[in-house]
Amino acid sequence: MKTQQMLRSHPSAVSYHDALAKCIDACFECAQCCTACADACLASDMVEQMRHCIRTDQDCADLCGVTGRVLSRQTEPDAATLRSLVEACRAACHACGKSCRSHADQHEHCRICGDCCKACEEACETLLTAMD
Amino acid sequence: MKTQQMLRSHPSAVSYHDALAKCIDACFECAQCCTACADACLASDMVEQMRHCIRTDQDCADLCGVTGRVLSRQTEPDAATLRSLVEACRAACHACGKSCRSHADQHEHCRICGDCCKACEEACETLLTAMD
Amino acid sequence: MKTQQMLRSHPSAVSYHDALAKCIDACFECAQCCTACADACLASDMVEQMRHCIRTDQDCADLCGVTGRVLSRQTEPDAATLRSLVEACRAACHACGKSCRSHADQHEHCRICGDCCKACEEACETLLTAMD
Amino acid sequence: MKTQQMLRSHPSAVSYHDALAKCIDACFECAQCCTACADACLASDMVEQMRHCIRTDQDCADLCGVTGRVLSRQTEPDAATLRSLVEACRAACHACGKSCRSHADQHEHCRICGDCCKACEEACETLLTAMD
Repeated sequence: MKTQQMLRSHPSAVSYHDALAKCIDACFECAQCCTACADACLASDMVEQMRHCIRTDQDCADLCGVTGRVLSRQTEPDAATLRSLVEACRAACHACGKSCRSHADQHEHCRICGDCCKACEEACETLLTAMD
Repeated sequence: MKTQQMLRSHPSAVSYHDALAKCIDACFECAQCCTACADACLASDMVEQMRHCIRTDQDCADLCGVTGRVLSRQTEPDAATLRSLVEACRAACHACGKSCRSHADQHEHCRICGDCCKACEEACETLLTAMD
Repeated sequence: MKTQQMLRSHPSAVSYHDALAKCIDACFECAQCCTACADACLASDMVEQMRHCIRTDQDCADLCGVTGRVLSRQTEPDAATLRSLVEACRAACHACGKSCRSHADQHEHCRICGDCCKACEEACETLLTAMD
Repeated sequence: MKTQQMLRSHPSAVSYHDALAKCIDACFECAQCCTACADACLASDMVEQMRHCIRTDQDCADLCGVTGRVLSRQTEPDAATLRSLVEACRAACHACGKSCRSHADQHEHCRICGDCCKACEEACETLLTAMD
């Protein structure tokens, strides 16, 4: 990802762009992981037991995708919207990571996805502190 | 939109589907309005003064799109994620509506979009109460 | 949806806005239907037989969502991109509609979704002709 | 991105996953670049001359985002939809890359984004050949 370079080339680049770039990258990575994990869970023999995991994967993929996108903009944002969105993303990552980690022994994709969610949850947390 | 019919045909339909269907419809409508308004502002003669409006339009379009989508699912959700997402959507609609209404006299698209945002903000509020 | 009003209020509104507005509305409606249908199929007792239907629902929801969004913009588009996107949306609607209609007797949500897909496929077809 | 690992851990992994993983990664990177470039162009002093670039950036961001997402699924796809979507993504990257490269001397973000678009266009081309 060329996120750092893109952020720095903006006419009105924000001051906290390390935390920002890390969160954007974590969001796009987590969107990919969660989409792939939902799909691998759907193909699993034990799909009937994977419904909650698929649901949290799908919601987390949606939230991470939109958060990575919104955070990629730096022009005249509304601060309350940004904060609220990153909090929602953190909540989705928390729920999905918990669900995926509970299936980590049975499914390699759930183990990897649990790691992605944890990394993204932490990147959201760090960004929320940096935005204060 | 066939939202009501789709919600009712689900094997495990939720109890608050009137508030839910209204919020989903308001989200999709607001996603369309905000995308179109951002684009009309970009084409405007006074684009240099419309940057904040374009930014809030884009973020609101993104948030409303993803909220309409996530709320369209009823299978085994994580309650904290849903609540946090609807709160973020409400914040985006509040900021965008405020910005659009301040340009309502100059741009018909901002006037209509201001109404869409207000309707969606209220639908989010009503849904948050219903989900309690 | 306020699509017609939004399209007309644009500084450089296109000439074919009836076909355009109908296609945008059909896209957003189909995005909602397909998201809800994928989720209802996932909750179904016969989820193991619904995998292809869920997959086409998800892809169709994604394509319709992005097509409704891109078509909502009227400022200086690239014609080849628009045409190619509407063709892809039509293909997704065709595949998903076919899959959903094959389950229409067992699942009311598949029946409704099959209708949504058909309407959106036709709206894409009409728009492709109008854009010529 | 953990795309390769995610693809390989799927119960029914496709045969062409090198080309697939590269295309998915290029799509997510390009979605980030184009979103950031549209926003940096909007903040530019010469925004009035950047409208076509902003428009192609936005459409390319949307197309790449949805293509990265759809390609991350491997369960029972419709082949015609996949092909048509990757073709649309290639068209969007072609148009956006051309527009961005024409501004590469004035804007560093357009230069970087032009590279992202070219890489993604080529990854789409390679994947289309691999899927045959």
